[in-house]
Amino acid sequence: MKTDVLVIGGSATGLVAAMTAKSHYPDKSVTVVRRDEKVMVPCGIPYIFGTVKTSDNNVLPDEGLRKLGVTIVIDEVLSVDKANKQCTLKNTDAITYDKLILGVGSQPVVPGWLPGTGLKKVFTIQKSKTYLDQLQQELEGCQKIAVIGAGFIGVEVSDELVKIGKDVTLFEILPHVLGQTFDDEFAVEAEKILASRQVKVVTGIGVSALLGDDAVRQLQLSDGTLIDVDAVILSMGYKASTELAQAMGLEINAFGFIKADQYRRTSAPDIFAAGDCAEKVDFATGKLSRVMLASTACTEGRIAGLNLYGLDTYSTFKGTVGIYFTFIGDTGFGVAGLTEKQAQSEGFNVVTGTFSGIDRHPGKISDVHAQTVKLIVSYKSGVILGGAAIGGKSLGELVNVIGVAIQNHMTVHDLMMTQIGTHPLLTASPAGYPLIKAAEIVANKLRG
Amino acid sequence: MKTDVLVIGGSATGLVAAMTAKSHYPDKSVTVVRRDEKVMVPCGIPYIFGTVKTSDNNVLPDEGLRKLGVTIVIDEVLSVDKANKQCTLKNTDAITYDKLILGVGSQPVVPGWLPGTGLKKVFTIQKSKTYLDQLQQELEGCQKIAVIGAGFIGVEVSDELVKIGKDVTLFEILPHVLGQTFDDEFAVEAEKILASRQVKVVTGIGVSALLGDDAVRQLQLSDGTLIDVDAVILSMGYKASTELAQAMGLEINAFGFIKADQYRRTSAPDIFAAGDCAEKVDFATGKLSRVMLASTACTEGRIAGLNLYGLDTYSTFKGTVGIYFTFIGDTGFGVAGLTEKQAQSEGFNVVTGTFSGIDRHPGKISDVHAQTVKLIVSYKSGVILGGAAIGGKSLGELVNVIGVAIQNHMTVHDLMMTQIGTHPLLTASPAGYPLIKAAEIVANKLRG
Repeated sequence: MKTDVLVIGGSATGLVAAMTAKSHYPDKSVTVVRRDEKVMVPCGIPYIFGTVKTSDNNVLPDEGLRKLGVTIVIDEVLSVDKANKQCTLKNTDAITYDKLILGVGSQPVVPGWLPGTGLKKVFTIQKSKTYLDQLQQELEGCQKIAVIGAGFIGVEVSDELVKIGKDVTLFEILPHVLGQTFDDEFAVEAEKILASRQVKVVTGIGVSALLGDDAVRQLQLSDGTLIDVDAVILSMGYKASTELAQAMGLEINAFGFIKADQYRRTSAPDIFAAGDCAEKVDFATGKLSRVMLASTACTEGRIAGLNLYGLDTYSTFKGTVGIYFTFIGDTGFGVAGLTEKQAQSEGFNVVTGTFSGIDRHPGKISDVHAQTVKLIVSYKSGVILGGAAIGGKSLGELVNVIGVAIQNHMTVHDLMMTQIGTHPLLTASPAGYPLIKAAEIVANKLRG
Repeated sequence: MKTDVLVIGGSATGLVAAMTAKSHYPDKSVTVVRRDEKVMVPCGIPYIFGTVKTSDNNVLPDEGLRKLGVTIVIDEVLSVDKANKQCTLKNTDAITYDKLILGVGSQPVVPGWLPGTGLKKVFTIQKSKTYLDQLQQELEGCQKIAVIGAGFIGVEVSDELVKIGKDVTLFEILPHVLGQTFDDEFAVEAEKILASRQVKVVTGIGVSALLGDDAVRQLQLSDGTLIDVDAVILSMGYKASTELAQAMGLEINAFGFIKADQYRRTSAPDIFAAGDCAEKVDFATGKLSRVMLASTACTEGRIAGLNLYGLDTYSTFKGTVGIYFTFIGDTGFGVAGLTEKQAQSEGFNVVTGTFSGIDRHPGKISDVHAQTVKLIVSYKSGVILGGAAIGGKSLGELVNVIGVAIQNHMTVHDLMMTQIGTHPLLTASPAGYPLIKAAEIVANKLRG
């Protein structure tokens, strides 16, 4: 089989890369090769346990690909011969291509130093529907569940498992949950909400072993404490999947990602890499970054797809701005760009401003939620380096406003002059719009 | 009495101007003069009828002013002698000032050509709490209510009155409700939702007279049709309140607003005007504009307050971007910048892109809502001139993302490279984020 554009990987990156390639170069044939018949919506995976109940309610539709005329091949890639531009598959004929996009994603970290990860009832959160269905079934008989690692996935899975009546303990070696993503005052709020939802949170101590004969029975903390468990979920981060790229002889960076420039071109001609598997540099510093996000993956997939046959679109993509959010109970937590801690450790002289108010107005509106915005600003230039927010149902888009401000290099002075829309049933009041008020607080500090 | 900074007007503009002035110039004394003991949250006024039940739940708090040490004087301004910098009040001693900010707002239009507006049971939507309380009380005995004028206020008041069981007919002379703010395809959706909520919508025909002896009894349409009514609410627009400014000898522009530059300085030294009473120019064209919004008023109040004693903040405020939204039933409608119709009538060669999806993902999330974004883009430059959206509870902040993009002169190409955050419970999927997808559609048209 022959295709002009071959995309390996069917998750967010592959989907967007293929759709973009086909829309932008309609005369080219585009083929996606992926392993799974049904692909999970990646960020929806934690929600299969409670909110949407089953992985069948979390399938990424193929409709967009099919409508555009993208060919889908369900198979496993064995190897790619980049000199002859040929991809060998396990069950079907080899595919020759002109341009190749690798969107092969990432896989859960299972730390080699942790004894007992091979025991039964020890799971990770993988993207395979088959694996997740089996995980969900096996958890049915388990009551006491330990989740190890309190990043977004660990927090979301924990919150979902208590929704279905499990006894969940969330372990985090850092002083706070979400500690790599939020400054402490935000992380502490997240912990309070988790606690109120009956997730037991244990922070500041590591897990040193998983114990049991056949299945895991106990978990040992670094101080020797033993805790009985029926199952363990490891959510200790993800690593880029680079086996194929390494076998192909592509360059891999110091953080273990496939090297790729801002147009997502790898070290080899006609081969692009995007999403979790591909190199990231930080928007603020240009340094290598480890941020993996479905939304970033989509942006990168789009960039790869656009620039396959020439750089006709000048890339204004200057690196990754991590824009994350989660929703715990009825409270959203979000961040865009650098936290105060991160900015300081990079050497920025920062000034911050935090404003707390409400996300609807007046306060007597029924679904009003407390809302806080913190801005992290470069002292000398006034440029916004990052922002974090807590809020209700509009928290996500509020953080996106911050994200767009960061990507436009806006200063706090610009932000103070920025016009926003407000409405009683949809936002904070115009006099108390948190982003502008936080900018005011920073501007007053800069002047003082 | 003597004050450094005198602010006349206690609504959104006055509040923000005074707070900004006092925060930015803490050594200066700041005084606000306003007529009303209690000030209404302006955009919350339509919601006193149903959602928050009483005007007492819609009061703008004085706490922010008091905390900062701003003096509040409740009185009526009789005149201002700008040569001697003295403001004469009805009940209290005159106030001398160094800098003056006029934030005197706007008032409902009562058209002189419409007979019968002086009858009892004919109301407007004013900002005075006393007036609104009386209106609410008088409506108690009325069942058949005609609302004339289907801008945001007319639409919101109608939707609120059906919530409390009134029989409401909404009249609009334009072909569609919200016809000055939205392109037709959005307006039609708003009409459908109003109809489903039992608001009778009558468009494309004018009202020629209000009839009755003492109180209004009937309404006559321009085709002679007579309609029985118990009360009429006129929501036919607002005009800048400029009586005081005119008496002071300040310049008034051709649209009837107090002339003011981008720092909100009027034609007289040391006098600023901001909010509904002050000149607006359009962000895209620099032409005079009639847009009046609480959010814009707050931005202007902030600019006036910052620049009282010298322009130490370079103003990036280059004119008004109208950013509006409303919420009808459970559906939000919003717009930022120019509509397609407006852009075309200005002479822009435009290309548009509309994408429809959902505002949570996957679609099985319980509070998912349909979501549509339309982008209006300048053909040659690719610059985003405007956007409109329909959605659920995060619609407001989504439209703010568009507003910030417009104010940063982003192009569709920039937008396609923009990183956004996404989350199942808070936003659309990253592969279907409506703003980026609409940008893609436009970019494909531009290329084609």
